[in-house]
Amino acid sequence: MVRRYTNKSASRREILTGAASLAGAALAASTAEAETPTSNLPPGVPEWQQQPGAEVMSPPYGQPSPFEAGVIRRERTGGSPYPTRQAAVSLTPLQDLHGIITPNGLHYERHHGGVPAIDPAQHRLIIHGLVDRPMIFTMADILRFPATSRLHFLECSGNTQNWGKPDAALTVQDTHGLLSCCEWTGVPLKTVLDAVGVRDEARWMLAEGADSAAMTRSIPIEKAFDDALLAYAQNGERLRPEQGYPLRLLLPGYEGNTSVKWLRRLKLGEAPWQTREETSKYSWIMPDGSVRQFNFVMEAKSVITSPSGGQKLAEPGFHEISGVAWSGHGKVTRVEVSTDGGGAWSDAALQEPVLPKCLTRFRLPWRWPGGPALLSSRATDETGAVQPSREALLKQRDARSYYHYNAIQNWQVAADGAVTNAG
Amino acid sequence: MVRRYTNKSASRREILTGAASLAGAALAASTAEAETPTSNLPPGVPEWQQQPGAEVMSPPYGQPSPFEAGVIRRERTGGSPYPTRQAAVSLTPLQDLHGIITPNGLHYERHHGGVPAIDPAQHRLIIHGLVDRPMIFTMADILRFPATSRLHFLECSGNTQNWGKPDAALTVQDTHGLLSCCEWTGVPLKTVLDAVGVRDEARWMLAEGADSAAMTRSIPIEKAFDDALLAYAQNGERLRPEQGYPLRLLLPGYEGNTSVKWLRRLKLGEAPWQTREETSKYSWIMPDGSVRQFNFVMEAKSVITSPSGGQKLAEPGFHEISGVAWSGHGKVTRVEVSTDGGGAWSDAALQEPVLPKCLTRFRLPWRWPGGPALLSSRATDETGAVQPSREALLKQRDARSYYHYNAIQNWQVAADGAVTNAG
Repeated sequence: MVRRYTNKSASRREILTGAASLAGAALAASTAEAETPTSNLPPGVPEWQQQPGAEVMSPPYGQPSPFEAGVIRRERTGGSPYPTRQAAVSLTPLQDLHGIITPNGLHYERHHGGVPAIDPAQHRLIIHGLVDRPMIFTMADILRFPATSRLHFLECSGNTQNWGKPDAALTVQDTHGLLSCCEWTGVPLKTVLDAVGVRDEARWMLAEGADSAAMTRSIPIEKAFDDALLAYAQNGERLRPEQGYPLRLLLPGYEGNTSVKWLRRLKLGEAPWQTREETSKYSWIMPDGSVRQFNFVMEAKSVITSPSGGQKLAEPGFHEISGVAWSGHGKVTRVEVSTDGGGAWSDAALQEPVLPKCLTRFRLPWRWPGGPALLSSRATDETGAVQPSREALLKQRDARSYYHYNAIQNWQVAADGAVTNAG
Repeated sequence: MVRRYTNKSASRREILTGAASLAGAALAASTAEAETPTSNLPPGVPEWQQQPGAEVMSPPYGQPSPFEAGVIRRERTGGSPYPTRQAAVSLTPLQDLHGIITPNGLHYERHHGGVPAIDPAQHRLIIHGLVDRPMIFTMADILRFPATSRLHFLECSGNTQNWGKPDAALTVQDTHGLLSCCEWTGVPLKTVLDAVGVRDEARWMLAEGADSAAMTRSIPIEKAFDDALLAYAQNGERLRPEQGYPLRLLLPGYEGNTSVKWLRRLKLGEAPWQTREETSKYSWIMPDGSVRQFNFVMEAKSVITSPSGGQKLAEPGFHEISGVAWSGHGKVTRVEVSTDGGGAWSDAALQEPVLPKCLTRFRLPWRWPGGPALLSSRATDETGAVQPSREALLKQRDARSYYHYNAIQNWQVAADGAVTNAG
């Protein structure tokens, strides 16, 4: 028999004893005396245990509990800034999620011309331009190539609009919900590009979607031959319609917009195409007022998802601080958490597996003493990049900026436990 | 500019050239000459690109494409052997899945009294027996404890009924579909047991579900203090009703039945309780006719999911052989594949991440020359255990056995490419 009270540090024991004193009520003696499991159930057998439940496959493709009906994608609190809901966003409910996987039904959306309903038997991928053998591929063709699967986050470069004065009412779904993470399966793009024979003079690749916006982006050829995927599955099953069914480009670590959905065309060329989405949109405004294009990689970033805006700490005592961190450059190596507005920082535990260009879940035990607190997290990635403060970020970018906000997120805890967005 | 034709082995180049010769048609010159992406689209712009698509959040909790309506849980081909569909199984469509994650809507089911519809606000977990402080926990109490997330497979110990003569018509969903893999989040059970104070004389733990069967199993105390979780989330979101909402026990690597769903009671004691599910069921029949109880760990096992029963190879040439391997003892260290019925074996590539007690995806490039072939896979785990042949397994167990069949699975490829179950 293994001895089982080893490996508990004093501080951890203290924390858990504290948790136990809060969590759970002492059991009445009459209940504790129930002996046999099936013939003498403890008193208070619930109603749902007193008759048979639902059959298997109710339904064949399962759905969440009706008690979780509030866990859905949402538009931003206070209304959508977009002119139509076909060229708009929906946000992942990070405050309700656990671990690193986003279930497919809750993956964020950003569409420019709505979600097309594509028959995979009719879909084609065209590859042309500076290639030796221009080709058209069916989905059956794509599925014949050797495949790979990898866990990667996707983040819209418009995620987190904290450039201006923070709106205290926003939740983490509002501020950071253009962020999701799935296991993606597809064909390494390099394999298919080798098959068509990319010419030496090719330096850029145009990717075009089969949506009504014909969404197009210019991609550096190095990325196409690095870790790019022609993805057809997410979290085990085929892509969801709103994630590009039946085929999308997947560029790990790049701004989400470049992972072109409903992918129908790749063209190899010598220079970028200067499409709408890389001229009037998805560019940076620098402090001198100049505009910088082709800022692809999502920088080191993190956010505390619990506690977060709109939640309320029920009472002083133990609370786990938990959140997610990510970097488009590779692995997250460190997440620090402050509960006093950045005065003191503690290293959070990084939960395994820690994978490159993937969400990493971090956790830190915390004893809330009551009274105001300011909660912040700060990520570092394997390149040594450290998530900046808002002040530091605004020195690098003009305040009229819109994309690639990756500054530290702060949540204000009030004396009554209410949590609000502090930007 | 990075040079991009490096690192291709001769054999890999040969395979991919072969794939390219099959995959994709040469592009007509008129199409290749389309120059500007949005104003001069290639000919044949599909109907779905000619008007705006669906709005965001259609619906707020997303669903698969209607073209994937056939990817569902199913009962076994030829009909269910169970008396009611409330005490039955449904099977994961492994032939349609990619990577290692099972989407929650496709997780297999095994119920003994149907799926109860539990209000989480009313649910309670009772811990009593040989403990210092018997306690009742609400879900809010459970959620206050420090949490962890881990990716683990679950396999029903009744998975793969190949003890007798193989039924050629079975698919891999039929033969191996009582197998799924999710990221599970919950409280390490050890944390909660430490809070109630388990007494030294405790050696076993009874776990009881809140279903109408009051499903109960006796668990060795070592497992309870090892990697057991009180799980409340799967793949990021709260448990699905059919997976134990709002709370289940999760015993990594153990037969699925012991990961008791709708968990309402844990009792610590000195000896197992000899419940129905560990006396009349879930036991082994040994070659001498004796019965062995408490066989918890799912042994090293693998199965090729593509190509697999019911599929058909369209033509000779390149086909990737792909499948999943797993072991309840830890990590998979090797998967070998044979295409000639076990004469010659080749090492398949194991896709990262390779995690303990988790599905591992394996892949092997294969050129089908046409003609009959017999495809088999053989897993080895980090304890050195090698998946046995059916003949070797039957020397260890009586042919009347039902549980823990982990022998090598063989798929027969006919001369016309049709794939059937060869047991």
